Amino acid sequence: MSATGTVRPCAARDIGTWDLTADVVVAGYGVAGAAAAVEAATEGAEVLVLERAGGWGGAAALAGGFIYLGGGTALQKACGFDDSPEAMSAFLMAAMGPGADAAKISAYCEGSVAHFDWLVECGVPFKPVFYGEPAWEPAADEGLMYSGGENAHPFDEIAQPAPRGHLPQMSDKRTGERGGGYMLMKPLVETAERLGVKARYDTRVEQLVVEQDGRVCGVVARTYGQRVTVRARRGVVLASGSFTYNEDMLAAHAPLLLDRPGSAVEEHDGLAVRLAQALGAGIAHMDACEVAIHMDPQYLIRGIVVNDRGQRFINEDTYPGRIGQAALYKQENQTFLVLDEEGFEQARKASAAPEILQLQPKWVCESAAELASEMGLPPGALEATLEVYNRHAEGGQDPLLHKASRWVRPLRGPLGAVDLRGMTSGFALGGLTTSTDSEVLHVNGEPIPGLFAAGRATAGIAAWGYASGASLGDGSFFGRRAGRSAARA
Amino acid sequence: MSATGTVRPCAARDIGTWDLTADVVVAGYGVAGAAAAVEAATEGAEVLVLERAGGWGGAAALAGGFIYLGGGTALQKACGFDDSPEAMSAFLMAAMGPGADAAKISAYCEGSVAHFDWLVECGVPFKPVFYGEPAWEPAADEGLMYSGGENAHPFDEIAQPAPRGHLPQMSDKRTGERGGGYMLMKPLVETAERLGVKARYDTRVEQLVVEQDGRVCGVVARTYGQRVTVRARRGVVLASGSFTYNEDMLAAHAPLLLDRPGSAVEEHDGLAVRLAQALGAGIAHMDACEVAIHMDPQYLIRGIVVNDRGQRFINEDTYPGRIGQAALYKQENQTFLVLDEEGFEQARKASAAPEILQLQPKWVCESAAELASEMGLPPGALEATLEVYNRHAEGGQDPLLHKASRWVRPLRGPLGAVDLRGMTSGFALGGLTTSTDSEVLHVNGEPIPGLFAAGRATAGIAAWGYASGASLGDGSFFGRRAGRSAARA
Repeated sequence: MSATGTVRPCAARDIGTWDLTADVVVAGYGVAGAAAAVEAATEGAEVLVLERAGGWGGAAALAGGFIYLGGGTALQKACGFDDSPEAMSAFLMAAMGPGADAAKISAYCEGSVAHFDWLVECGVPFKPVFYGEPAWEPAADEGLMYSGGENAHPFDEIAQPAPRGHLPQMSDKRTGERGGGYMLMKPLVETAERLGVKARYDTRVEQLVVEQDGRVCGVVARTYGQRVTVRARRGVVLASGSFTYNEDMLAAHAPLLLDRPGSAVEEHDGLAVRLAQALGAGIAHMDACEVAIHMDPQYLIRGIVVNDRGQRFINEDTYPGRIGQAALYKQENQTFLVLDEEGFEQARKASAAPEILQLQPKWVCESAAELASEMGLPPGALEATLEVYNRHAEGGQDPLLHKASRWVRPLRGPLGAVDLRGMTSGFALGGLTTSTDSEVLHVNGEPIPGLFAAGRATAGIAAWGYASGASLGDGSFFGRRAGRSAARA
Repeated sequence: MSATGTVRPCAARDIGTWDLTADVVVAGYGVAGAAAAVEAATEGAEVLVLERAGGWGGAAALAGGFIYLGGGTALQKACGFDDSPEAMSAFLMAAMGPGADAAKISAYCEGSVAHFDWLVECGVPFKPVFYGEPAWEPAADEGLMYSGGENAHPFDEIAQPAPRGHLPQMSDKRTGERGGGYMLMKPLVETAERLGVKARYDTRVEQLVVEQDGRVCGVVARTYGQRVTVRARRGVVLASGSFTYNEDMLAAHAPLLLDRPGSAVEEHDGLAVRLAQALGAGIAHMDACEVAIHMDPQYLIRGIVVNDRGQRFINEDTYPGRIGQAALYKQENQTFLVLDEEGFEQARKASAAPEILQLQPKWVCESAAELASEMGLPPGALEATLEVYNRHAEGGQDPLLHKASRWVRPLRGPLGAVDLRGMTSGFALGGLTTSTDSEVLHVNGEPIPGLFAAGRATAGIAAWGYASGASLGDGSFFGRRAGRSAARA
């Protein structure tokens, strides 16, 4: 990986003087770091956050802002939805797997209502309006959405559906700077500052410092070319993100993301993961990735998504991230959207998505056979798919993939096809194994003393599947636990 | 994982006396350990192999015995096949990915001819007869087979096909004890013994012993309840297999294998991987698995393999392990084989497979619609698949998936379907990251001094895809390099 050798720990006895000292030292000022800082400070700890970028925010501040919460949050209730920790847990165990971590999901679902209240107490604004349209994000500043396919096959039969994508109210959606993620991060950082948390920017953690007995007691960082030694009296929290921008780690663990656009910030170089691995920490689910498909669900849901054999493979009314994952992992990233004129027109009218997500058909033909030929599909395949789809669609049915009846309509007349081949991007979901108290776990299963982690440097609630909001959700939830555990260590 | 804490290294200064000493200590007497032992002894090292089972062999001795070799081996030539390291490398880079390790594959292909000669010198017998029938294994003691789909789409267009599955000649195939893997292992172990290699059985390596500077200098093992300390003057070779039987590791890395039959030996508990991880070793491709589908290719190739939407998804004439992988990873292990009476009859006549691989149809019906209904498939889907398949099959074509013309024939009259749902098993392919000289690599990319590894404890030439023989192949090839590197350390 890195040839510098700096990921090896530094022995405490080799630290001459500590330049800085705090009770809890947090690496990374994204959502997990901010949540850890607030909670550690609330516990009475003196907290220092080291952030390699020039300011707080991390990937979180640039994200859409979904926080996956449920079980009956105040926002869900205000929007008229019932939910329970049991329904939330049943959904997550099914949708975040295979391999979903039952202990983490259980803790997360049990604590979700209180976690929402905590976010509100920190000043995160949520507008109690539900957005029910198919979309990646709400049209404006609505606060609640389905963000994981809860109300679509097969999950609608596994658990009572409820929308769980909680969105901080955006002051100006279109600038990005004031998007949902920013409106989550700003109050968290302001809360941290009120509680006395200190931050150092342009300061990159490069090494962990370890006592002879193996306890992590500080970090070595670099700021403007200078080495800074930072003592942590109680604990170190690693919260510096995923390995999405580390090509060697992608090649070793998640090669399907190689050469794809990363949906993170370039600081996500996997350093936190490797720093802890050098102490014997375990890692998990390193092959898993969030995958976005670059198309507005308003279009996807009205058409059929097919692979390069002209076959449908997923109900188009599910969470679009599931379509993206299925496309990248199971269909070799070779997919198309086929839609008729009426469908395109309806989608265009309904869409609130930016133009970049409203891809236009690359091919338009009078017949399915012509279209398949233009698209380069094997003769007869798309035609058969459409024939079967349309036959059942006459009765509003989709026995093949169980798209909900309201979205099922025969596709007639001139047909268009959008080229979705390669139109995916994503970020890595795997990372360090941690306990439900956010202790970093050695491969022998025991906590590494003094070391805590949260956010996308860790394997969280998403083991393979994903829902929008799972990262800001488990990052903030287990980030708080990391801060609390470190403060009490 | 294990709660015992024993995977942490032991400090050399805490070893009172060394019970045993050798230049090179090898953990595991399967194919990688045997190859390492022979090569280290050839280099003049005093070698001690510690094997936890009651005798040598490991998973290798129970395996079918394929060794994936090529580039123009004497056996390939004797059977009339041309091959080159370039063609072999082009195939492996395509078939072992995504994420295939170019450096390892290059070294492997360049050294393949010499490695075959070395096996012959060690006394491994190969009968220079090619077996050309579709099968998991040859009918009798033939020595060469296609074992990776080299002569099927898409690989036949990526590289000049050549059969590369080299099989030690079996003295009695039906007993298992004298199968190909046994006939590989026996001469290797005999060669090791001739070279003075010592072995201790019922001796399980439990800890690595590490000098203060990080160099691995021995192991702590357990034999009949007694702790044994074993000093390695030059190096330790980890060759004790995969993590296929470690449920925690499967849950963290390869959850699709959970609750599936493992195709390995139960000693494959991932201990070697965790022992090295505790020293900061990197791991790679932990999600990858070899997957067998429990059906004779003579049947598969004559029919169509469909998922639970009645769709074909792979050319049925490819390596059956690719069908297994596609079924488990991409079709949720929900697949069926559909075949007509003539196809079943031809397959039955041609098959040399044991009965357990000649599954009988669970459903037989006069029409495709009846069959689909009996199978519980969505109405119309299988019928459409068959209609398209048959239409092109009239002309010997398969434009959908490019099955070779000789195997394409319309499926007519009464149709039968074999239930292949869940009929897969496999073993894990991921493991430690190693250099092309079989040094175990720290997550910082540097070798861990004194520590070497090979076989399925390491990530080898198969990053996701697989070919029969890749494990005995890279296990023996990089096992030799591990032994050589350790002897020279």
